[in-house]
Amino acid sequence: MNKLIKNACIMTMDADNTIIENGYIGIEAGLITYVSADFPATFMPHMIIDAKEKIVMPGLVNAHTHTPMILLRNYADDLPLQQWLFDKIFPMEDKLTAEDAYWACQLSMMEMLKSGVTCFSDMYFYMEEVAKAVNKAGMRSNLSRGLQCFNDDFDVMTDERLLENEQLFKDWHGEANGRIKVSVGPHALYTCVPEYLKASVELAKRLETGIHIHVSETQKERDECIEKYGKTPVKHLADLGVFEVNTLAAHCVHVSDEDLDILKQHHVNVVYNPGSNLKLGSGIAPVTKMIERGINVALATDGAASNNNLNMFEEIHLAALISKGVLEDPTAITAEKALQMATLNGAKALGNDRETGSIKVGMKADLIIVSKKSPHFYPRNDITANLVYATQASDVETVLVEGQILMDKGDFKTIDTEEVLYHIDKISKRLFEVS
Amino acid sequence: MNKLIKNACIMTMDADNTIIENGYIGIEAGLITYVSADFPATFMPHMIIDAKEKIVMPGLVNAHTHTPMILLRNYADDLPLQQWLFDKIFPMEDKLTAEDAYWACQLSMMEMLKSGVTCFSDMYFYMEEVAKAVNKAGMRSNLSRGLQCFNDDFDVMTDERLLENEQLFKDWHGEANGRIKVSVGPHALYTCVPEYLKASVELAKRLETGIHIHVSETQKERDECIEKYGKTPVKHLADLGVFEVNTLAAHCVHVSDEDLDILKQHHVNVVYNPGSNLKLGSGIAPVTKMIERGINVALATDGAASNNNLNMFEEIHLAALISKGVLEDPTAITAEKALQMATLNGAKALGNDRETGSIKVGMKADLIIVSKKSPHFYPRNDITANLVYATQASDVETVLVEGQILMDKGDFKTIDTEEVLYHIDKISKRLFEVS
Repeated sequence: MNKLIKNACIMTMDADNTIIENGYIGIEAGLITYVSADFPATFMPHMIIDAKEKIVMPGLVNAHTHTPMILLRNYADDLPLQQWLFDKIFPMEDKLTAEDAYWACQLSMMEMLKSGVTCFSDMYFYMEEVAKAVNKAGMRSNLSRGLQCFNDDFDVMTDERLLENEQLFKDWHGEANGRIKVSVGPHALYTCVPEYLKASVELAKRLETGIHIHVSETQKERDECIEKYGKTPVKHLADLGVFEVNTLAAHCVHVSDEDLDILKQHHVNVVYNPGSNLKLGSGIAPVTKMIERGINVALATDGAASNNNLNMFEEIHLAALISKGVLEDPTAITAEKALQMATLNGAKALGNDRETGSIKVGMKADLIIVSKKSPHFYPRNDITANLVYATQASDVETVLVEGQILMDKGDFKTIDTEEVLYHIDKISKRLFEVS
Repeated sequence: MNKLIKNACIMTMDADNTIIENGYIGIEAGLITYVSADFPATFMPHMIIDAKEKIVMPGLVNAHTHTPMILLRNYADDLPLQQWLFDKIFPMEDKLTAEDAYWACQLSMMEMLKSGVTCFSDMYFYMEEVAKAVNKAGMRSNLSRGLQCFNDDFDVMTDERLLENEQLFKDWHGEANGRIKVSVGPHALYTCVPEYLKASVELAKRLETGIHIHVSETQKERDECIEKYGKTPVKHLADLGVFEVNTLAAHCVHVSDEDLDILKQHHVNVVYNPGSNLKLGSGIAPVTKMIERGINVALATDGAASNNNLNMFEEIHLAALISKGVLEDPTAITAEKALQMATLNGAKALGNDRETGSIKVGMKADLIIVSKKSPHFYPRNDITANLVYATQASDVETVLVEGQILMDKGDFKTIDTEEVLYHIDKISKRLFEVS
């Protein structure tokens, strides 16, 4: 169905950060086929969306999350990461079923769509169920099976998790008109022995795909890695060849200048998770240094269990604020840079930047429409600053992926809210009342 | 009009942080006359508010802002405080008229009400206009005339600003059924010579009221104070006798342990402005140390020109996150503490805690009702954590001050949205198109 968006303030997020004050976007077969300040005289739309007093921008990319973990939101707060993970989260995860993951992923997508997310990168288990949910909901995503192995006596040919990740790839990579991609998901160096990390990368190479991994999230991870392997997490992973495939490195909070040079050299994509890193007391990633070096920095919420929300507008806000405060430098991360992290850089990190992340003819129509009607949009001034410093998730009015409307004025078009919330209530009763 | 709120999850914010899972609140003549888990058999309400699936909590207190500065939102971003203030803000402020302040304050109140604020402390000029706007809108506030004087040749008897502040007190202190209070507002030690600070405090003593002042906001302020007066800002102000009256000390970012002891000793109320301090690159206040010492720490947005929003739920979130990340301690500021800062501590700082800041029989009915219907309220788990880490301003459904509904489902009952936005547009055209 051809769509015309008219009267929009268009944040293209192209190389020049072009903003069209009052423009038109034509969409055909899921693609953007027209972008201009001029009325498209010959375009025949089946549907017209009036975006007067609204902003149209590329959909946000949540580059690192664990959608089923939304079930553990507010379950264990104010604890250090390792204690939170090993004492609270891992035992509770043993209770989760595949069906739980299916409903939980839908709840996560509801929350993400409401804050303008069109694409997310997910690492967890029961990922076949997640893939089904994503396929049905119409979002774009990069999925990986979280892989853990604490000792060397695994067999690559029979290791259940590696096989699952491979099966996930075979079943889903490139499916849903290419909306779903599959990577390999070695969880972290402290949950994967070196040989297992190598096996994961070998799998990624064989499948010609990338990996998604947690890197140098806490001081403890860094200290223990140095003690055990005599080198930093980044160096350890680099030496094992992990970075030889396209890498999504979540966190990178505790990294030295030398680590940053290694990340840059291997074209590693860093995913910055300011909310989660703050909440877990993990620390503050040296994002300005990464940007100075030309490292691609994407943005993410992490899972709702450690954030405790999936609101990407809050992460954009945090990304723009935190470095300024910590470095006592108000020019540290500009509003423009924060917006880029959440759009173009995310698309780039997932290898999608030829298709999404900016508004240009030929790109997929993954777009969001943001209303400017709330008091915090007055007076009408710098729109980039407004999007970063004042905009709230609730300003997101409409979300399109490949030209299909997935959310409009709070209504989900592909997710049955009542059905999802019914199941979430049922699941949470089972999880928490017995525990 | 007697009101009964029923079926509510009541966050009382009392000394024990009592939460009533399903309770009733009776309101008569603006006061809370009934709070219980039991149905009030003899209460005769004129209006019933069903708060099923909703949270009722004390209205938020924004303890330091400059409401007319909303006109300068997004006007000058990513600059250091002193440059931002002296090169951009002060010159623009010269263009503001009294009428501008009247409309700007109303826009600020719209934004604050939307995030659940019932009371705010304001320091600026044209405060008579601000008082009129507050009176009309029905909010609770503490107003002070921002006082500046850069040299010693002022005359206490004829100084225009001191006289204005005194007149403001005479006209408005205790007015609107006590909703409006007036303090004295010496701006800061770097904008007031010592004799002027003393004169301000003398005025406050004579009027038997408190003062509202910026304290140790930046390293530059601290360094220059030490250079000029041989002591820290806190010591300098203490020695001048500034803290001899009830003091609202905004910021206190750069303070030593000794400074904190002085603040504690003088019962100074610190107002923490995490968003503004981060955005201006001012730094991060040692809030955990303040709390350890028993200093009363309230919370605030600062003005919209340096934030750039007046969303108190965002400040609560920041307050809970920042210290955890900076100290790498996830237990640093608990969710409960962050909520207290935004409610009870704010009321205490403004000397209102016998009337507001918690839900108890006999208190004024300054309440907000927060909807739990959004996806980020699922699964139903720890409600305190949810309010702090996931709740958004848009979840605030209803705001009452002294039992009067000021905002309900986005509609303002005492502010004419169209009228305000018409004037804001007109003013901003004048301010920005000529500049």
